[in-house]
Order: sequence, then structure tokens, then C-alpha cells
Amino acid sequence: DIAYTVANCFESNALDGIRVVISAGPTREAIDPVRYISNHSSGKMGFAIANAAAEAGALTTIIAGPVNLATPENCQRIDVTSAQDMYQSAMQQIGQCDIFIATAAVADYRPATVAEQKIKKNDDTMSIQLTKNIDIVSAVASHSNRPFTVGFAAETQDVERYAKDKMQRKNLDMIVANDVANNNIGFNSDDNAVTIFCRDDDSMAIAQTSKQQLGRLLIAKIASQYKQ
Amino acid sequence: DIAYTVANCFESNALDGIRVVISAGPTREAIDPVRYISNHSSGKMGFAIANAAAEAGALTTIIAGPVNLATPENCQRIDVTSAQDMYQSAMQQIGQCDIFIATAAVADYRPATVAEQKIKKNDDTMSIQLTKNIDIVSAVASHSNRPFTVGFAAETQDVERYAKDKMQRKNLDMIVANDVANNNIGFNSDDNAVTIFCRDDDSMAIAQTSKQQLGRLLIAKIASQYKQ
Repeated sequence: DIAYTVANCFESNALDGIRVVISAGPTREAIDPVRYISNHSSGKMGFAIANAAAEAGALTTIIAGPVNLATPENCQRIDVTSAQDMYQSAMQQIGQCDIFIATAAVADYRPATVAEQKIKKNDDTMSIQLTKNIDIVSAVASHSNRPFTVGFAAETQDVERYAKDKMQRKNLDMIVANDVANNNIGFNSDDNAVTIFCRDDDSMAIAQTSKQQLGRLLIAKIASQYKQ
Repeated sequence: DIAYTVANCFESNALDGIRVVISAGPTREAIDPVRYISNHSSGKMGFAIANAAAEAGALTTIIAGPVNLATPENCQRIDVTSAQDMYQSAMQQIGQCDIFIATAAVADYRPATVAEQKIKKNDDTMSIQLTKNIDIVSAVASHSNRPFTVGFAAETQDVERYAKDKMQRKNLDMIVANDVANNNIGFNSDDNAVTIFCRDDDSMAIAQTSKQQLGRLLIAKIASQYKQ
């Protein structure tokens, strides 16, 4: 059972020497020197997973968007701002990474042009043209030297359907889905509840618990799948 | 001189019993339940001014956007998220406010429609239609029961010209201009340097100093202008 798996994972240092890279937090996409587009990700889930990975003996690196969180013990941290920064940082880790866990809420789009000066307001309406960012977790999972790749799906509806579709489409080994429409969990909350879907059709629901505890449960599950 | 004015301001409790309302921090304008538009304001300048106002004896209220700052001693705090929330909160203070200091970096525009569900990405490009927010400091300064109104101008070019134009256009009593193109000061920095312009053509430059100290210099200047 899961309690046994978790205890076993940490007692046996299940990820001893395994290189784990975790992306965490939001990204910020500049509109001009003052304004940006971002999202409500706090980074807490990713930092909790990093903490658990390090506890399980992994060589752990966090690629962190702008968050207000202390670096967990025994983790390396690379701070980035935009999705493009995070993509470059993730690509630099390929080849030195056995497991990649993409918890970051990366902006899907960025402003097509970034104004060099603060945009002056004049009109009653305005529009921002956006262009798609590179999909980081897809790029990692489709790399010739791909690590075991875990994605996250923050959804507000049809969570299971969107999550499984995302796992297939992006060639992930595992996806962790959470329903961000529920205000008790996710984003800025200290708690979360998720369902894990694996490529071999295994799935596991984890009821609401602290992100710290959830981090340990996820790392135990990832370690067991990684070693299959 | 300024040192004398400042010492005198705090020794004499220059704002004793005066009701000061300060808006601070950024606002967040929702795109959907997950994404938003915001800006780099940290709220530090506004909170430092609130601290100085309370030290000078004012009954001080902060209307704060999303910031990671502790409430200064002897200040009331109202937390808001969007420009519309901040506008409503500011309007509720009119009639119980002698001096309004608008340090908040209020979003000029908000998405014209807010998606109820997380927007799914499909196309390579996308555009966000924006609509203008009510100008809070203008609304305060043009109210029939207007307080003494102080604005801020965060500019990246032509600072003096834009600032003076903004003071006239918005009917402000005073404007505090800073050059946010200088990375040593402004926004997330603990330091700032500003130039103050007053309606009576008085102006005063304050060289780079801590935001705490700058808060006290600004409150001394505001108190002296308010009492003229």
C-alpha cells in the first residue's frame, strides 16, 4: 500500500544519486518595463516536491519562477522570470537529469512585442497580441535524451479528461492533475489534493493533505514508477 | 531647510488627528481564474509613507493590492486585488479622508471579459481585448468632497514633463515622480529617488535614499503643503 511505499522510499533513500530537476512557480511575461502577464502559482507544490526529492537522496535542482519561498535544504536553485528563460534553463539541464518534474505554471503565451518604454494609456480600449511560448515539458519529453518526465495539469473543469489527453499529447510518463476551481486546495493554499495518472494506466487519487506530505507521496510514486 | 522641516514634522506630530489614506502595491486584473495582468510594484514605497504618516500622528489607512508586506504599526489595512476593488475602497474613504496619497500602481486596463474557465490554448497567436479602468486618483481629486490629493508618476522617460502633465490633468495638489528605468531605485528596490512637484510650482528633488527615510521626507513635505 501507499504508506508502505512511502516509508520504504525514504528509508531506502529511493532516489539516492538520481538527478531530479523540478520547475516551480509562475512565469512573468513582460508587456513593457512595468507590466506583465502572470498567474496565481505560488510555487509551494514544486518546492515541497523538491524538498521530498532531496529527502529521498536525489541530487535536486529547482528552476524557480518569481516566488517568495526559501530554498529547501540540499537543493540547488536557478531563478528565472519568463517562460523563455525557464525553457533555456530546462534545456541546459537535459543530459544531467534523470527525472524532470514540471510543476511550474508556465505562461502559454507571451506578448508578441515587448514595449521598450512604459506604454502610455490613451484609448478606451486596447489589445495585446500574444504569441505562443515553447511548451517546456513537451520539449523535455520529446528530447532524444529524455528524462523520466512528469507533468502537472491545473484544470478548472473535466480534470481527468484534460489531464490524460495532456499526458498522451506531450509524451509524459506521468501526470498529476488538480482541480484549481476548488479554493481549498491548489495555488496559494498550503493544501492540495490530486490524482496521478501513469502511462501504464495506473492511477492514484490522493485526498486533501498538506503540500509537504503530498510532495513525499508524489516522490514515492515517481520513484516506484521510475524504477519499473 | 528640509532637515529642519522633517524634524519639526515628527516632533510636533504634524499630522495629529489628520486622516490619511494611502493606496499601495499593484493591482491584478483577471484574464481567467488562473491568469492575470499585473505590474512590478512591491508596495514598499506606500507602506513606508504609511509608516511615516502614522509616526507623524495621522489616522492612517492603507488600501493594499497584493503585496508581501507586514502592516506598519498603528495603520489600518484594507486588502484588495483588482483596480475595481481598489476604486470602490477608495470611494468609501472619501468623506473620512483629509489627505489621499495614491502610490498604488493601478492597472490602467483590465481584460474586457474575464473567462469563467481556464482558457485552453490552441492557436499560435491570441489577443486579449482590454478596457480602461476608472482612474482612481482622478476620481478622488475631482470629487466634490475632495481630500488633499497626492499622486505618483512612475515613468521610464521624460519624467518631469509627464509628471507635471499628469498633475494638471488629474487635478492633483502634488505629484511625486520617479524614474523606474533606473534599476537602482523604484519598484522592488529598498531605495528610491524622486522629484516632487506641487501645484504652486514649488518642486523638490530627493536624492537616492531608503524608502523608509523617503517616506518621512514626503510626509513632512505633504504636511507642510497641506497646512498652507
